[in-house]
Amino acid sequence: MLHLQGHTDPRWGEAAIACLDEILLDHAHCEKKAASTALSLVFRYADQAALAIPLSRLAREELEHFELVVGHIRRRNGEFRRLSPSPYAADLTAAVRSHEPARLVDTLLCCALIEARSCERMQILGRALADAVSRGDERVDRELVDLYDGLLASEARHFVSYVELAHGIPGVNGAEVEATLVRLAKHEAAVTAAAPVSARMHANLRSP
Amino acid sequence: MLHLQGHTDPRWGEAAIACLDEILLDHAHCEKKAASTALSLVFRYADQAALAIPLSRLAREELEHFELVVGHIRRRNGEFRRLSPSPYAADLTAAVRSHEPARLVDTLLCCALIEARSCERMQILGRALADAVSRGDERVDRELVDLYDGLLASEARHFVSYVELAHGIPGVNGAEVEATLVRLAKHEAAVTAAAPVSARMHANLRSP
Repeated sequence: MLHLQGHTDPRWGEAAIACLDEILLDHAHCEKKAASTALSLVFRYADQAALAIPLSRLAREELEHFELVVGHIRRRNGEFRRLSPSPYAADLTAAVRSHEPARLVDTLLCCALIEARSCERMQILGRALADAVSRGDERVDRELVDLYDGLLASEARHFVSYVELAHGIPGVNGAEVEATLVRLAKHEAAVTAAAPVSARMHANLRSP
Repeated sequence: MLHLQGHTDPRWGEAAIACLDEILLDHAHCEKKAASTALSLVFRYADQAALAIPLSRLAREELEHFELVVGHIRRRNGEFRRLSPSPYAADLTAAVRSHEPARLVDTLLCCALIEARSCERMQILGRALADAVSRGDERVDRELVDLYDGLLASEARHFVSYVELAHGIPGVNGAEVEATLVRLAKHEAAVTAAAPVSARMHANLRSP
């Protein structure tokens, strides 16, 4: 799915339900971080005129999702609060090359892969939530199923947007972008497989 | 207007029209910077739960304005590009105290005052643009008048939002916030009066 080179065990969804409040909180932080990353690229690459508007729109959409997820946290009597991030994004972007335009291509493709992995995890979580609701599991409700159903399409679209932006960088050819995407997707799969066990969207979870 | 302690000479609007393309570019950067500042406060004060959603909404609105202004730059055959910022924001926030919660109060009130000054400048620019359009000045058009008319209300609302957020910080009393607003507004007026002459929203301009 979406160029991912390794797939998450579907039991991850059930495990996530066992620590759902922390998963939701991490999810809120992920949306905020995604907005912040998109916006920081508008600053860093102000002279790449083709990036400004698409990245600003992406950031706005991530912020809408942030607000949406915080709404669900509050609905469950929780509150948005500080949370230590998983090492996923830092480990992933450690593979970004340091010279331009490779740095920009790699950064955009890492953003694409984060969206892809998020999409995969949300799909697994959404299915597990739907199963749990149909079993009458009181830890969850239909609203959460709808939340993840609604977010899936955006995440997949964001993956496509980031890959398209990478293709649009002047002086970079398409075959190079595709080869880089494969290389980074392999790295992403390795980072994901080696992720620590913790209640985070991009971490591993023990089966409950 | 909006607690500002010093007022901009109305001739600033006419002077801004003489360097309008650079003013529009600076304006786009200001909107982007405002979004980024709001978002950075969500990160820095993740445990101030009352800030998260209002600041996220503010950031989204600033990004909408960023996209709007970039649209006008392009309509005038310009392009979004890097621009050195005016020293205004750095000079203003030099007055922020370093201990909490004073640091947060001061930062929110500085954000409020930036919105207030932006509102004042946009009102002056909007009026100058309307006059220029009615004189048949070919450097400008009705769309620009509408742009600034449309943005004014948001800027004024953002001023109010930031002041309200400062009032809502636990452990801070209302009289203290009001006194701080007056103190910072005086500082802001001094910074504005002493600003260098350059084609920036928050700088001074020589009468054309």
